[in-house]
Amino acid sequence: MSKKLLITTLACIILLGSVGCTEMKAEQPQTESPRNVIMMVMDGTSSGAIALARWYKGRDLALDQILTGGVRTYSAESAITDSAAAATALATGNKTDEHYIGLLPSKITTPGKQDENPKHALMPVANVLEGAKQVGKATGIIATSEIQHATPAGFSTHVPSRKQKEDIAEQQVYQGIDVVLGGGAVHLTNRKDQEDLQKIIKEKGYQWVNTRSELQKANGPKIWGSFAEQSLAYDIDRPATKPSEPTLAEMTNKAIQTLSKDEDGFFLFVEGSKIDWAAHNNDIVGMISDVLAFDEAVKEAVRFAERDGNTMVIAVTDHGNSGISIGNRQTSRSYAHTPVESIIQPLKKAQRTIEGALQDLKPDRSNIKQVAKQYGLDHLSNNEVRMLINSNHVGADLSAMLAEKAQLGFTTYGHTGEDVFLYAYGPSHPTGFLENTELPEKMAEFMGFNLEKLSQSLFINAKDAFEKQGYITKIDHSKKYNPVFVATKRDISIEIPANKNIITVNGKQYPLRGISIFNGRDFFVSEQVKEFTP
Amino acid sequence: MSKKLLITTLACIILLGSVGCTEMKAEQPQTESPRNVIMMVMDGTSSGAIALARWYKGRDLALDQILTGGVRTYSAESAITDSAAAATALATGNKTDEHYIGLLPSKITTPGKQDENPKHALMPVANVLEGAKQVGKATGIIATSEIQHATPAGFSTHVPSRKQKEDIAEQQVYQGIDVVLGGGAVHLTNRKDQEDLQKIIKEKGYQWVNTRSELQKANGPKIWGSFAEQSLAYDIDRPATKPSEPTLAEMTNKAIQTLSKDEDGFFLFVEGSKIDWAAHNNDIVGMISDVLAFDEAVKEAVRFAERDGNTMVIAVTDHGNSGISIGNRQTSRSYAHTPVESIIQPLKKAQRTIEGALQDLKPDRSNIKQVAKQYGLDHLSNNEVRMLINSNHVGADLSAMLAEKAQLGFTTYGHTGEDVFLYAYGPSHPTGFLENTELPEKMAEFMGFNLEKLSQSLFINAKDAFEKQGYITKIDHSKKYNPVFVATKRDISIEIPANKNIITVNGKQYPLRGISIFNGRDFFVSEQVKEFTP
Repeated sequence: MSKKLLITTLACIILLGSVGCTEMKAEQPQTESPRNVIMMVMDGTSSGAIALARWYKGRDLALDQILTGGVRTYSAESAITDSAAAATALATGNKTDEHYIGLLPSKITTPGKQDENPKHALMPVANVLEGAKQVGKATGIIATSEIQHATPAGFSTHVPSRKQKEDIAEQQVYQGIDVVLGGGAVHLTNRKDQEDLQKIIKEKGYQWVNTRSELQKANGPKIWGSFAEQSLAYDIDRPATKPSEPTLAEMTNKAIQTLSKDEDGFFLFVEGSKIDWAAHNNDIVGMISDVLAFDEAVKEAVRFAERDGNTMVIAVTDHGNSGISIGNRQTSRSYAHTPVESIIQPLKKAQRTIEGALQDLKPDRSNIKQVAKQYGLDHLSNNEVRMLINSNHVGADLSAMLAEKAQLGFTTYGHTGEDVFLYAYGPSHPTGFLENTELPEKMAEFMGFNLEKLSQSLFINAKDAFEKQGYITKIDHSKKYNPVFVATKRDISIEIPANKNIITVNGKQYPLRGISIFNGRDFFVSEQVKEFTP
Repeated sequence: MSKKLLITTLACIILLGSVGCTEMKAEQPQTESPRNVIMMVMDGTSSGAIALARWYKGRDLALDQILTGGVRTYSAESAITDSAAAATALATGNKTDEHYIGLLPSKITTPGKQDENPKHALMPVANVLEGAKQVGKATGIIATSEIQHATPAGFSTHVPSRKQKEDIAEQQVYQGIDVVLGGGAVHLTNRKDQEDLQKIIKEKGYQWVNTRSELQKANGPKIWGSFAEQSLAYDIDRPATKPSEPTLAEMTNKAIQTLSKDEDGFFLFVEGSKIDWAAHNNDIVGMISDVLAFDEAVKEAVRFAERDGNTMVIAVTDHGNSGISIGNRQTSRSYAHTPVESIIQPLKKAQRTIEGALQDLKPDRSNIKQVAKQYGLDHLSNNEVRMLINSNHVGADLSAMLAEKAQLGFTTYGHTGEDVFLYAYGPSHPTGFLENTELPEKMAEFMGFNLEKLSQSLFINAKDAFEKQGYITKIDHSKKYNPVFVATKRDISIEIPANKNIITVNGKQYPLRGISIFNGRDFFVSEQVKEFTP
């Protein structure tokens, strides 16, 4: 990200063939030091999981110091959101549908809004990272999952399905993010379109790092850390199974160090991704492990914000998950004399999460007792051992056995729809009870841009725009995984590939201010394309 | 409560036989208008229940406007509190044990505090209502349960077991509370000690009211409303089953009108009691019904506070209950396309709570279909009808069937240990993440007194105090349910009955500033007794 980037956008109005462009200065905050935002998401973390993590730790959490309110999490189509719709809400300020990333919804079932005409269905909407870039800030994204997973994708890309991880990967590479740290190496190189994104990342001047120690040594302004083919290990498993991976706090710390050198300030997104996965498995060890790892990252963020004085930190979960409760059917009558130790001691016996423990399970399960012991389940009866050997759901059975010992309840393997806590720190930080969609508005206002205006400038319908100027347009699907928007007029031939920030005019490439999006039906491109269309 | 009450306490130091008393002015806030506190508890209300109630209502809650933080709820002996220990924490600032009301704990299992010597076990500690009284404020308590139930008891009395409802009733009658509204008439008149507390209430100058319309007409400074032998009906059931009972909002409104005439300000405690009971039954209709009724009461309180400008409103649940989640095993995979209507419509069919519906069930259950329909369960299959007729837990089965239809999960019939939301409004209102015990400290500071000092002045050990002055003491158990502390020296004979604010010196009665407490072992009396002991 150029330090010299002129903080302007071109607003062009095309009316009856005439073209008028106005230069609009983005409203930069009038402060001495640049404004920063660190947005942190602990995925799928219900209140019970946070309370348990605190008991497990035995001390207050960093989060406890910055609790300021509550958040509603539902999506456009469901009382219970998925992570894609939640990330879209948190990053762009728009409720959307399951699986949608950075696009407006097709289906709205929210009471009172069902009749809203989804005429903008699937239209891309700008996220706060894109806004931060436009006002000249450095940007970063961090996740412990694949970096292409729904939540980091929501803060950096626009695709109709979160499953399009290769498209997400490509958009992230061409998005011009300064620091990218997480898993998901597989989606950079082992791709259906045969592109080698790792090569492109290096060509773009990133320091490419794969290990904790390489990350520690990295010192340039642009770092791409890809630490696992898929997700990083759970925090509690890492020392034994993946010692070369960095912790979430280490990644956060490095990103802050790097981005804070930008004189225009920075936006950083950080996700504790796998709390959610552990919750889907009802794996309380994984949930606690990664809530605490997330909390360490929050500590880093708040420590920087305290020193800096001009940094807004927000931490929030995107939705509940698993219906976890301290107390279950066993404690229906005994709850009021259930010492904390009777809950925590069984959990402290575990050395690994379900994922970590099952890595060592032999195909014939002959070592099930050792594996169960790794998960804190010692002294299994012969019946229990037999049950586990024959189980079709050995992970679920192990997690249920530990939950029983620890007197914890679960209602589902899916997400849940309760309101969640809001944590925030720093100037103008949000407080009170908010829609998840209000958080990006607060961030945008603090950083000095307007998301709605930005959407209008970053994502215009390419077909409409070019046809109004007399171009003939089509979408070229000849490269199966890389659709290209093509516009021709007389001797001018324009090509705009999906997922990249590139326009080609008569064979010559120019960079665009934003990435171009194909939503399966239409292409959306930066308004800036008009600069290239006489 | 006398408007002219001198706001002083006597601090007496007895040292080596010499007695020195100092007059201490309570630190009154320096404000134009008197300071008021309205403390509201929705018993046993997890986040999921609040979110559901909002969806059911279809609009924002009054609570939503005043969410300011979060609260930890655990007790001295358990990760999961009961309502007695929770009320003690919220009213006195002390974590205590299951069943204890307004007394210090005998058993402490909280990690890091297990070794604390519970040398003060069972000692009474002052609550915020007692503090408000001492600084001259009017006071009131309201509940939809028996007014002697654990939570209102925690804000007005001191007993080693919440089950001692007759002792609680007696203490409330002698506590000098100005407005008392709720259920529990049975404990006033049908008593083992044969005392007629209703008669005493009337002698003390209360307007005695039994119905909604009598309450509306009441206009004196002291009102005792006893609207049911036991608890009041759930809000949704009331129109059909108990139309003569007032709503929680009506009681709150009347109490505010009455108490706010006091020139020294007031303290009011309000409980939505039966959300908790519904949660124990996993009865979602009851939970929603009474969350919404509570919310209407919050609206009344905040409306007054907005006008008044000098009133702190706090609303909080004392603990989670039932492990309720929006989403259950059915939605483990479908959660992200679960429209709000698919959850709310089944609930809207219900006309009654489980309690309300089962009132009409005939002994032979021949009308089970109509009863189930009242609970929103129409179109039962023959199998379901047969199952319900033969069920040993017909209420639990009905609630489970409705939860299934509404895609809701429950983990327990007991309380749960997650952190809960804090709602607050008005000057100096609490924010952030707090222990439940911090809330009474905030209230006390706002009203201008110190709970610890107050405990020392209201509850001295009677035996120690009198024996130090040369008295011979004993506890007279000749009246089985009314123990009396007796102290004699030469020609002086002193009697102090438990649960009352009375001292008798040589047959002549005097009022005491606080009630006298027998904790099963020792008597605790106001320091003021020293004024009567030459």
